[in-house]
Amino acid sequence: MEVERRSAETDTAKFDAGEMAVAVRAGDRRALARAITLAESDHPDHAAEAVALIDALLPETGGAIRPGSSGAPGVGKSTFIETFGMYLLGQGHRVAVLAVDPTSRRSGGSILGDKTRMDRLARAEQAFIRPSPAGNTLGGVARRTGDPIALCEAAGFDVVIVETVGVGQSETAVSGLVDMFLLIIAPGGGDELQGIKRGIVELADLVLVNKNDGDLRDAASRIASEYQGALSLLRSDSPDWTVPVMRCSALKETGIENIWAAVERHREMLTASGEKAHRRARQAKETLWAEITEALLAELRDAPSTAAMIPALETEVATGNVSPRAAAQQLLGKSKRDGND
Amino acid sequence: MEVERRSAETDTAKFDAGEMAVAVRAGDRRALARAITLAESDHPDHAAEAVALIDALLPETGGAIRPGSSGAPGVGKSTFIETFGMYLLGQGHRVAVLAVDPTSRRSGGSILGDKTRMDRLARAEQAFIRPSPAGNTLGGVARRTGDPIALCEAAGFDVVIVETVGVGQSETAVSGLVDMFLLIIAPGGGDELQGIKRGIVELADLVLVNKNDGDLRDAASRIASEYQGALSLLRSDSPDWTVPVMRCSALKETGIENIWAAVERHREMLTASGEKAHRRARQAKETLWAEITEALLAELRDAPSTAAMIPALETEVATGNVSPRAAAQQLLGKSKRDGND
Repeated sequence: MEVERRSAETDTAKFDAGEMAVAVRAGDRRALARAITLAESDHPDHAAEAVALIDALLPETGGAIRPGSSGAPGVGKSTFIETFGMYLLGQGHRVAVLAVDPTSRRSGGSILGDKTRMDRLARAEQAFIRPSPAGNTLGGVARRTGDPIALCEAAGFDVVIVETVGVGQSETAVSGLVDMFLLIIAPGGGDELQGIKRGIVELADLVLVNKNDGDLRDAASRIASEYQGALSLLRSDSPDWTVPVMRCSALKETGIENIWAAVERHREMLTASGEKAHRRARQAKETLWAEITEALLAELRDAPSTAAMIPALETEVATGNVSPRAAAQQLLGKSKRDGND
Repeated sequence: MEVERRSAETDTAKFDAGEMAVAVRAGDRRALARAITLAESDHPDHAAEAVALIDALLPETGGAIRPGSSGAPGVGKSTFIETFGMYLLGQGHRVAVLAVDPTSRRSGGSILGDKTRMDRLARAEQAFIRPSPAGNTLGGVARRTGDPIALCEAAGFDVVIVETVGVGQSETAVSGLVDMFLLIIAPGGGDELQGIKRGIVELADLVLVNKNDGDLRDAASRIASEYQGALSLLRSDSPDWTVPVMRCSALKETGIENIWAAVERHREMLTASGEKAHRRARQAKETLWAEITEALLAELRDAPSTAAMIPALETEVATGNVSPRAAAQQLLGKSKRDGND
C-alpha cells in the first residue's frame, strides 16, 4: 500500500479524486502531497479530477489562519519559519508551509534549500512542507498556491504559512491569498534593506526584525524604529490595524510568542470587522477571473494559427512598428476566423 | 466649419481617421480632442478607425517626456500642475495634461474640478488638458490613457503629464505608461500623509513636498526628511537613480525649476542606461496583452449565453459554494460549446 502510493505519486494517471478526498480529509500527508500535485498539474486530463477533488473538499476549506511571509535572502526566513512552526506545533497547531518561488531561475534552488534547512519542521508529524512552483501569472499563483492552501486546510492544517522569496514577483499575488503578510528583515549592512523589492514593504501587515540577538541587538532596534517611522507614512490597508514592527530571534527562539499573538490579534480584527469574509469572497472572485483569463490566453498561445503569429507581433509592437491595438486586433481577428471555420 | 467640427465631436459616426491624422499632426487641439474621443470609444465601429489613426501617427509618437503625478486630495495637485505647466510653457514647451480618474464614484468630479482650477493652463494656446475616464482594468487605462498620450505626442506636445487622483487604483497601471512618477505630498495633519494609498509611495521616482511656504515651511522640511528616511529603506527601481525628495510651493511658484531639472536628469538617466527604450518596449508588450485580455473577457461578458451565467457564478464562488476553478470551467465550457455550434 505504501509502495503503491509512492509509485502513484509520480504516476499522475493513477489519480482518483474520490479516494483522494477521503485520504486528504483524514489528514494523510502523502495523499495531501498527491492531491496538491494533481491540483498543480497543467495536464488537461487532470483538470476535471482536480476540480472534483477541490469541490468535494470545499466545505472543509477556509478555516486556517493564513500568514504569508517574505524577506530578502539572508534575513533568516527559513530559520524563522522553522522556529515559528515548531512553536506552533508546541501550541497544538498543525502547520503547513507552502514555499512559493516563481523565479527559480533567479533564486536558484532556494526552496529545496529552505526545506532542508527546515529539517526539524519537515520531520515533525503535525507539519507539512511543500514547494509551490507557482507560474508567473496571477492565475498561476492562484492555482498553484490557492488550491494547495485549500487542500492543506481540508487536511486539517489550521495554520498555513505561505512563504515567498521576496523577489517581488509573487508577493502581490500571494498577498491576495493570505490573511496577513509578514515582512521579515534583519540587521546588517544597508544592502540587506535595499534588497527588499519596492512594493513588498507596502504589503506588510507585520514587520518582523529577525536576528535580534548578540551583537546585532542595537542594529535590530535601530532598524525597527526606522521601519516604524517609514510605515507611519503609509496608510494601513485596514483602518483597524496599525502595522507593528516586532523584533525576534529565530536562532535564540525569542520574541516568537509575541509575533504569534500579533497574528492572532490581526485575525481577530479581520473577523470582527467582517473584513475576513469580505476578503475571502474577493479572493475567490479574483481567482475565478484569473483562472478564466489564464485559460483564454493559453488557448490563444497554444492554437497553432495564433501561436505562430505571437513572437513576430510582439517584436513589431516592442519595436514600435505596430501599435498594441493593431496587433491585438490582428491576433484576435485570426483566432476568430479560425473559430468560425 | 467650427460649428460642424463641434457637432462632429459629439457625433462619433462622423470620425475620419485620415483627415484626423493630418489635423492632429498639425497640432489642431480640437482634432486632437476628437481623436482621443475616438481612441477612447468602446463602439466596435470605431475600433478599426482608431487603430488606423494611431498607426498612421505611430512614427510621430514616443518623443515626449511623460511625467506621471499623483497625490492625496488637498496636497495642491492641480495648483502644482498649473504652475509646473505654466513654467514649462515659459520654457517653450508644449504641455498636455491627461487627468485619469477611474474611480469617479469615489473621488467625485475631481477632474473637472482640477480642470477648472487649472484655468490659466486651460486657456493657454500651447497647452492641452483632458480628463481621461480610464476604465477599471489595465486594458482600460492602457487604451484610454496610453493612446491619448501617443496622440498628444503626435500633436506635438513634448511634455505629457498624466495626473492620477491618488486613490491607488490606476497609479500602478499609469506608472506603466509614463517615464517617471511624481508623488506630490504636503505638510499638514498626519491625515494627509495617511491618505496616501499604500503602494503609491513605492512607485515614486520623485517625491515633491508642496506648500513649502509661509507657516508651513518647517512642517514641509520635517516631512521631506521623514520621506527621505522612509525611501532610503526601499530599493529604487533603477540602480542609477536615488529617489529625491524636493520641496516647492506651487502657490508661490518657488522650487519649480529644480523639479523640472530633476525630471530632465531622470530622463537623461533613463536614456543613457537604455532603460527608456527597454521600458517603452515592455510597456508596448504589456499594452498588447492588456488589450487582448480585455477583448477576450469582454467577449465572454457580452456573449448572451455566458453573460447570463456570470452573476450567479460569481455569487456561488464568493459564497464558497463552488470553487473558482469549477466556475471557470463551467463558463469556458459553455462559451466553447457555443463557439462550436
